[in-house]
Amino acid sequence: MKPVAHGGDMRESQRRFPDAPRPWIDLSTGINGVPYPVTALPAEAWSRLPTHRDEQALLAAAAARYRVRDAGAIVAAPGTQALIQLLPRLLPKSRVAVLGPTYEEHEVCWRRQGHGVTVVSTLEEAEGADVVVIVNPDNPTGRLFSVKALRAISARLLVVDEAFIDLLPAQESLAGDMPPNSIVLRSFGKTYGLAGMRLGFAIAEPGLIDRIHNELGPWAVSGPALEIGRMALGDGQWLTATTARLAVDGQRLDAILTAAGCKIVGGTALFRLAHHFDAQAMIARLGQHAIHVRGFEREPQWIRFGVPANPHEFNRLTKAFNL
Amino acid sequence: MKPVAHGGDMRESQRRFPDAPRPWIDLSTGINGVPYPVTALPAEAWSRLPTHRDEQALLAAAAARYRVRDAGAIVAAPGTQALIQLLPRLLPKSRVAVLGPTYEEHEVCWRRQGHGVTVVSTLEEAEGADVVVIVNPDNPTGRLFSVKALRAISARLLVVDEAFIDLLPAQESLAGDMPPNSIVLRSFGKTYGLAGMRLGFAIAEPGLIDRIHNELGPWAVSGPALEIGRMALGDGQWLTATTARLAVDGQRLDAILTAAGCKIVGGTALFRLAHHFDAQAMIARLGQHAIHVRGFEREPQWIRFGVPANPHEFNRLTKAFNL
Repeated sequence: MKPVAHGGDMRESQRRFPDAPRPWIDLSTGINGVPYPVTALPAEAWSRLPTHRDEQALLAAAAARYRVRDAGAIVAAPGTQALIQLLPRLLPKSRVAVLGPTYEEHEVCWRRQGHGVTVVSTLEEAEGADVVVIVNPDNPTGRLFSVKALRAISARLLVVDEAFIDLLPAQESLAGDMPPNSIVLRSFGKTYGLAGMRLGFAIAEPGLIDRIHNELGPWAVSGPALEIGRMALGDGQWLTATTARLAVDGQRLDAILTAAGCKIVGGTALFRLAHHFDAQAMIARLGQHAIHVRGFEREPQWIRFGVPANPHEFNRLTKAFNL
Repeated sequence: MKPVAHGGDMRESQRRFPDAPRPWIDLSTGINGVPYPVTALPAEAWSRLPTHRDEQALLAAAAARYRVRDAGAIVAAPGTQALIQLLPRLLPKSRVAVLGPTYEEHEVCWRRQGHGVTVVSTLEEAEGADVVVIVNPDNPTGRLFSVKALRAISARLLVVDEAFIDLLPAQESLAGDMPPNSIVLRSFGKTYGLAGMRLGFAIAEPGLIDRIHNELGPWAVSGPALEIGRMALGDGQWLTATTARLAVDGQRLDAILTAAGCKIVGGTALFRLAHHFDAQAMIARLGQHAIHVRGFEREPQWIRFGVPANPHEFNRLTKAFNL
């Protein structure tokens, strides 16, 4: 199987544009460029095996943040990707409908475990599937289904990947009041800007959560991730400030991209999806200015832009466009 | 299934001996009490997704340390436990023989995936099994099979968990010259005293390593673990000094345990297995002195002692025994 292309690895751009000035700016991901501050960790977070108590403290903070009522309905993993890998192993061979185009790992992981996968573009086309997978809001388009629309889906299992929902109003998430046939995935690293830390969550009925917990095994999440995750998820003030900053910076990005001739066709608080008639030339131009963005093989007129992290990055982008 | 009892969680001892003086000392694990120093990490290790290049740099350091010749023959995971969980999913239903008594997660994980598991006490009893699992040296007994004995095993798959082999001469490891039917697991956290970091490796023929890599998925290992692991595994000087310190401290521990009436019946550089006619009373006595050790339900006369980390811990142990 051909490996899935992701944002975040600048090597290829750097090889393609060896003469671009250093340092490069990475706008290819939807990872917050202003991370939650990592303070000095207690030595024990590194040295000893995480305890049940450490794990419970993280899960309590996550449950409060995500409005999960039942402590037995949430489990932590070393990144949402670990859950995307695992879930297809827990179900008998099924007909799986993935709402697309979207984050490609869902399709790849269900297929790898022998399920029959169709990528569909509407909820209607997903009807009759045993498993329906929806990234909500979608990456990269930002398409958002309402909780009401999600609750109307009658599949045996509904997988809702809410990797980019943190910065939307809480009522947009299915996690607070889940139908019994559903599982919600929540990511830590994108909103909190700590993607290297590896932390994600699954929320579902306790029976399924137990099975996931057993498959992950003991000590699945690192001590530092348990500690930082607990602090960050409990910090409502930081999230409020981040939401406000990204609202302002996102509008600034929109203005720049529009002035550069792009049409904003989608996005979330952490990234924008831009359409440009000659997106490939635009990607090359940005590369010559040492700015790495995300193109899409299947949609050659699309570019995904992460929100710049600071005035310096905004200036670099403005200059690259000659605005 | 009843969860497996492990060392490392002092809560139960603390509840049992609420009047013991603080702080507690944890000698219940085989984790080095003098960890590899965690220096300040580059912010990017936390903030961005680990790249292929980061992963390759770690694997190169690990391959050199473990004398693995083929770069495609090794894969990293967030802890050896993640590999112990995963391996039984990759094989058709098999007859599995686990050399025991040993680290119980092997038995539990093969059984969970529907394999037929027998715990056997000799290599002869393992004959005829499809899969043979050996912890080498064993935890907790320290029993060590020679590479020659391991190579003579004709099972379809031989799993050798070398979690405690780092501090033995390199030629004791199967990793340097592996028979094609074998897979070796190497742990980072025990020797380097960073069990909370979650890092482990599998070494096998590239076809099997590819399958494991695909099952783990991208970004399985955290950025901090890639960075610290690479530095530590490349630091031969630290390992030499640690080996020397543990040799001295291990002998000191032996002398104390012998004087306390124990017989040393096994162990490795990182722990000792002691036999005492009234081990339960000894565990209680140590608990009253706020020292947490590991007892064994199935072997009530056994106690596992981690090697104390410093003179203070040695003194506490000596005093608890009234020596």
